[in-house]
Amino acid sequence: MNIKHLHEAPSLTTALTGPLHALETHLLDQQNAIETWFRQQWLINKPPFYASVDIRNAGFKVAPVDTNLFPAGFNNINQDFVPLCVQAIQAALDKACPDAARVLILPENHTRNKPYLDSISTLQDLLTQSGYNTRIGSINPEITEPTTLYLESGKNITLTPVHREGDRLLADDFDPCVILLNNDLSSGVPEILEGISQVITPPPDLGWNKRLKSGHFEFYRLLAKEFSQLIDIDPWFFDPLFRNCGELNFMERKGEDCLAENTQKLLNDIQKKYDQFNIDATPYVVIKADAGTYGMGIMTARSASDVHDLNRKQRTRMSTSKGGNAINQVIIQEGVPTYETWGDINAVAEPVVYMMDRYVVGGFYRVHTKRGTEENLNAPGMHFEPLAFDEPCNVPDSGIDPDASPNRFYTYGVIARLALLAAAREIHAVSTDEDS
Amino acid sequence: MNIKHLHEAPSLTTALTGPLHALETHLLDQQNAIETWFRQQWLINKPPFYASVDIRNAGFKVAPVDTNLFPAGFNNINQDFVPLCVQAIQAALDKACPDAARVLILPENHTRNKPYLDSISTLQDLLTQSGYNTRIGSINPEITEPTTLYLESGKNITLTPVHREGDRLLADDFDPCVILLNNDLSSGVPEILEGISQVITPPPDLGWNKRLKSGHFEFYRLLAKEFSQLIDIDPWFFDPLFRNCGELNFMERKGEDCLAENTQKLLNDIQKKYDQFNIDATPYVVIKADAGTYGMGIMTARSASDVHDLNRKQRTRMSTSKGGNAINQVIIQEGVPTYETWGDINAVAEPVVYMMDRYVVGGFYRVHTKRGTEENLNAPGMHFEPLAFDEPCNVPDSGIDPDASPNRFYTYGVIARLALLAAAREIHAVSTDEDS
Repeated sequence: MNIKHLHEAPSLTTALTGPLHALETHLLDQQNAIETWFRQQWLINKPPFYASVDIRNAGFKVAPVDTNLFPAGFNNINQDFVPLCVQAIQAALDKACPDAARVLILPENHTRNKPYLDSISTLQDLLTQSGYNTRIGSINPEITEPTTLYLESGKNITLTPVHREGDRLLADDFDPCVILLNNDLSSGVPEILEGISQVITPPPDLGWNKRLKSGHFEFYRLLAKEFSQLIDIDPWFFDPLFRNCGELNFMERKGEDCLAENTQKLLNDIQKKYDQFNIDATPYVVIKADAGTYGMGIMTARSASDVHDLNRKQRTRMSTSKGGNAINQVIIQEGVPTYETWGDINAVAEPVVYMMDRYVVGGFYRVHTKRGTEENLNAPGMHFEPLAFDEPCNVPDSGIDPDASPNRFYTYGVIARLALLAAAREIHAVSTDEDS
Repeated sequence: MNIKHLHEAPSLTTALTGPLHALETHLLDQQNAIETWFRQQWLINKPPFYASVDIRNAGFKVAPVDTNLFPAGFNNINQDFVPLCVQAIQAALDKACPDAARVLILPENHTRNKPYLDSISTLQDLLTQSGYNTRIGSINPEITEPTTLYLESGKNITLTPVHREGDRLLADDFDPCVILLNNDLSSGVPEILEGISQVITPPPDLGWNKRLKSGHFEFYRLLAKEFSQLIDIDPWFFDPLFRNCGELNFMERKGEDCLAENTQKLLNDIQKKYDQFNIDATPYVVIKADAGTYGMGIMTARSASDVHDLNRKQRTRMSTSKGGNAINQVIIQEGVPTYETWGDINAVAEPVVYMMDRYVVGGFYRVHTKRGTEENLNAPGMHFEPLAFDEPCNVPDSGIDPDASPNRFYTYGVIARLALLAAAREIHAVSTDEDS
């Protein structure tokens, strides 16, 4: 399916758009108050360098379901938004790096994941166009000398192994003033990054070795409550409910009862909200590795018995996350169906919003032809087509329908920035912990 | 001529593009150093809220010929760049106005100049989309109550007379935190603006009542020299030579000899530069009111005798500037022909670059079908067509020809930002004067 030149946003295929219209209308009406509130928040909470947020639009609810602080997928953003990225990068790095203007990207260790390498190449281009001398480093033990990889796009990137000189991290003789981390450090912070004197952004302590999804959504929950008072709407309309248990082990069935019990409690809580707002849908939850990424270690459940009835293969799948790391903690999150579909084939579409500094710089839809409305669209081995947003999410138009494309994208931009702000508070909390 | 949907940049119709290619290549090669230099400059010099710069491209030279701190023409910018404007406005006002988010635009007193009103309406839209509650005030004595004007675009704007309450300026009960001046104050700072406690930006002391073009180009000359060392190219390639005299009076022929003499000196200086760089062209100068605007009080001269030989009508024309203000000081500026032409009809095109805060946000070409390459294209009563830039000037591409459209626009963006920086230094000098 060639969707490069389409400017058609996915349609909402649910009749349950009443509450969504209410949310969108509230956001449009209160745009000045909302932007003022964000401004004040950014004066207190420094935004991370970048982030992407997976959003699900159920028609009756729009909510973030994952916030990635080391985003890939930059190759999927609309080329028209490059100037926005350039401006945002300049705003983000101006103060961090006024003198030297040398940035080292530190990516994942992948060398064969072509879409990922395309994203890194795009990120390098964006930084170069912003006026930064940019190289790509590598902490992959297999990369022992500068290695050029050729991409399907016809471009190529060169990975240069990093080394230490005292407290500085260098790639060959390239001595960066900023290290831009694009590695989620699922397996921990490597020794070579410890105690270096250069700025590393986002901070390594926000890698999946330390960060928990439930921690993020705890910050988000508080923010959603605060924000709901500003726009006078129940926070549930943009906040996914969640619960978690302590340690568990899927193979040994340790913690299974707790998980089943909390699953049932959460399903009941969702049903209560559905009843409160007259929503005719069947609750489900998504159980994910609390430090998981890459769509690994994810299952859905519609009842407590779904947890008890897992077969051996399913238990194995729920036991291991990226890099072979064991899953011993999960978040049970309210399932938010995505009722956005694209084209005649009714492919399911999930929006992903990209931000740099405090600015929304675009996004794309993950469009799947073979997945259902309740499934996770970012799964290993699953094929998706990126459908670039044709709107940059920062230009609402109060003169048109609240669900018209610039306004729906504005809503996504607001929700994504709430998640970004939650991440900023996480970062602040981590730094404060370290300071104390 | 319907040019709304064209994405064709004007062509350079001169064979003299050798030095231009050298300049463009230098700028592309040194992009990192240039952007780093600008970054450092903006840490020291706060950019004005907005500015537009008229640029002329002679093929052998690209230079700013006027820098407007109260720009009109926002209606002519490519709609695709609205997100860039929004981001820049947010960057500019974030710190000035973190709490209240109320902006009052204070425009010129025009009520019948439709293109101007369209520009003000666009500016209001941009501020609204950036999340600012925005009204348009008026200091026009004819506007005694809120007055709605209907524009050709189908939109309308409401002018509300301003009044003082103590040291605050209000429009009705609207109490702004920032006053955005779009009035060049050619006739002086009105009493109602004196000593108000709100931020006025740009500062009224930069109005044409106090500012002189020769002052601006003096700052620009110093900057051009500094910048030329960075990129290792003679500053003349992007700096227009100029001279000025003291007081003069065209009607009374006071100061005429001084003007003629300096005109000749400048013509000789230009010829020397032409000889130095083997440029086969005939020097000319442009004589403009030193505090002039709106294309009023402008003439060209190719010899000292052009100054002596002015007829009565020409003298009258050179005696009065905008608002009937007398011209008693002029700048004699090197004439830079514009060799950019558009379409089959070879219409002359002059680029105008727009900036907000420190960001280039787009621009347009003034396209004239009835003017020559050496004439001023911003003249009263002259019809021009706006041709929106299809590139935002901040995304150079080193992989293509230096004169390809993104790179030519990058060159314009660099030159325009040099002029912006000169204006920032002017503002700083004015504020320092006041502080001392």
